[in-house]
Amino acid sequence: MTLRKDYPWVKTPVIISAPMRLIALAPLAVAVSRAGGIGFIGAGTDEVVDLEAHLREASQLIEQEPIESASRSTLPIGVGFCNWGADLKVSLQAIKRFRPAAVWFFAPYENSDLIKWTHETREVTQGETKIWIQVGSVQDALEVAKQCKPEIIVVQGSDAGGHGLERSASIITLFPETADALKGAGFEHISLIAAGGIAEGRGVSACLALGAEAVVMGTRFLASTEARIAKGYQDAVIGAKDGGVSTVRTKVYDILRGTIGWPQRIGGRGIINQSFHDAKDGNVTEENKQAYAEALKRGDLGWSEDGRLTAYAGTGVGMINKVQPAREILETTRRDVEKISSKLSGWN
Amino acid sequence: MTLRKDYPWVKTPVIISAPMRLIALAPLAVAVSRAGGIGFIGAGTDEVVDLEAHLREASQLIEQEPIESASRSTLPIGVGFCNWGADLKVSLQAIKRFRPAAVWFFAPYENSDLIKWTHETREVTQGETKIWIQVGSVQDALEVAKQCKPEIIVVQGSDAGGHGLERSASIITLFPETADALKGAGFEHISLIAAGGIAEGRGVSACLALGAEAVVMGTRFLASTEARIAKGYQDAVIGAKDGGVSTVRTKVYDILRGTIGWPQRIGGRGIINQSFHDAKDGNVTEENKQAYAEALKRGDLGWSEDGRLTAYAGTGVGMINKVQPAREILETTRRDVEKISSKLSGWN
Repeated sequence: MTLRKDYPWVKTPVIISAPMRLIALAPLAVAVSRAGGIGFIGAGTDEVVDLEAHLREASQLIEQEPIESASRSTLPIGVGFCNWGADLKVSLQAIKRFRPAAVWFFAPYENSDLIKWTHETREVTQGETKIWIQVGSVQDALEVAKQCKPEIIVVQGSDAGGHGLERSASIITLFPETADALKGAGFEHISLIAAGGIAEGRGVSACLALGAEAVVMGTRFLASTEARIAKGYQDAVIGAKDGGVSTVRTKVYDILRGTIGWPQRIGGRGIINQSFHDAKDGNVTEENKQAYAEALKRGDLGWSEDGRLTAYAGTGVGMINKVQPAREILETTRRDVEKISSKLSGWN
Repeated sequence: MTLRKDYPWVKTPVIISAPMRLIALAPLAVAVSRAGGIGFIGAGTDEVVDLEAHLREASQLIEQEPIESASRSTLPIGVGFCNWGADLKVSLQAIKRFRPAAVWFFAPYENSDLIKWTHETREVTQGETKIWIQVGSVQDALEVAKQCKPEIIVVQGSDAGGHGLERSASIITLFPETADALKGAGFEHISLIAAGGIAEGRGVSACLALGAEAVVMGTRFLASTEARIAKGYQDAVIGAKDGGVSTVRTKVYDILRGTIGWPQRIGGRGIINQSFHDAKDGNVTEENKQAYAEALKRGDLGWSEDGRLTAYAGTGVGMINKVQPAREILETTRRDVEKISSKLSGWN
């Protein structure tokens, strides 16, 4: 288990909480790391101005109750950035000050934009903060491996909730093809982590079989007590079934929310609602925008049945039926994986 | 291993070759069953008029060299139908005469259309021919379970090549959510098989971890010596990389090929080529159709680099690098799965 070297507090299988922007903040990140996973704060884009405050909060939570086996040289959580919109200088200040154990880069306009982020992060933390880069294609993985030599590549498949490549494979093929390509190019020392559609023990076990060193869960933690999420959104997650049919990857929700700037090839997977139905062929009318603004005023009700508000979620959403503390999610998942492993070793 | 009861010749993990229309015929189906898998003939739509001939060929191949442990009461291969376009009466004659071990139903206009197919197949073979039904959503699985009580449900995820739901999850979430829903509705006795994006040992192992009793491979067998496939098409499969980016699910290829009649919610995943690029937003012009017709005249060249001809393939296509006999594909895959299983039992 090579991850244990850099993240000595983890338990296997290593479960990582995705850096969901505005939702995964200090309480969730710390709870996940405390339970033997690796928790991430979603620093987002413009929101990096708040990163120092989030890291301070995380730092205080950990000071109050230290995480067993964590090293003192870094803060035992990570931070994820949407690099197309995050300010490098502001981000570096926070990274330098709090030294998160990892930074997770995602969605630059060009992969080469990450060279500077990588270099400067390593410089301000003397290499203590490890570089994770998320990709959605084999080509991207090869490019970032060559350009940045990250410690970790997060391979994100098409089932993922929120933002990802508009056209991509699921991890069932993307993961092994990426692993083969990286190995063929001499990058077998980069640790590969799977993301996208992993919601419980079976998905985790499947990823271990694919060769993943660890797995990321995002949607699953939307239904955690520590997520900073509106009740209406969380209820929509709990209520959704048949995740492949009830969610869709689209640009409609970004347009409705007024989030402008995502790289063209990226869309966000969310639960299908009236806003999406009204946006025929992805065209968002002024009427639709106004209805969205009205729904925002209704608060939690804006998400309910024929609701209009955005609920980003992955195709695993149909398997998420209750809100649980992060610790319980990790413990249950690890226990389920153990059961599956012993069953598999006697499968024939 | 409950499958061994009805298909006594199989070896574990059970690998099934998909009933690829016009490509998976007697030689491939028999070779796969002979190697310990379950081979399927793709009977297609109108093409069911040829089904008796294909089954006769399979029957003769097996008579020449019997398959070890196969029962004498059925032919140890299966037949797959595109039910929206296949004639029931014609199909039943062939089923009655040759008693394939299984029939695989797919893509009816309404799930309830399969009630008659199921009933009459059982009647003409006294229940010897088992009913397999392919689905792409949890709802479809629940419907066909209630209406038809098939022996097997094939759960097809979004990575699959050729035809499937235009919007669906990959098996990483679709499989476990479907299994839970069927169990919850009292259908835990139906065997579940995974399809879509399984191209080699890691994918098979992942599906076993998800709980699949067996797995289907389609695209992998396009590059088998027994497939009836144009060299140009096969070369396109071997050449494609980065399967999530180089393939797309679309209606464009059906339109270009003049295949009319597929249910509205279904599209075909194929390798992206000039024909697709020219069909902006999925609109196929007369010019595009003419260029397609011209390419057809060029034979194998019609597929090459900036080619135009259809090459249906799943996202696993990037991991397929050589043409192999079906037996070799099965043996290599089973060996790889065994290695992964023993590795996983000591993963922590």
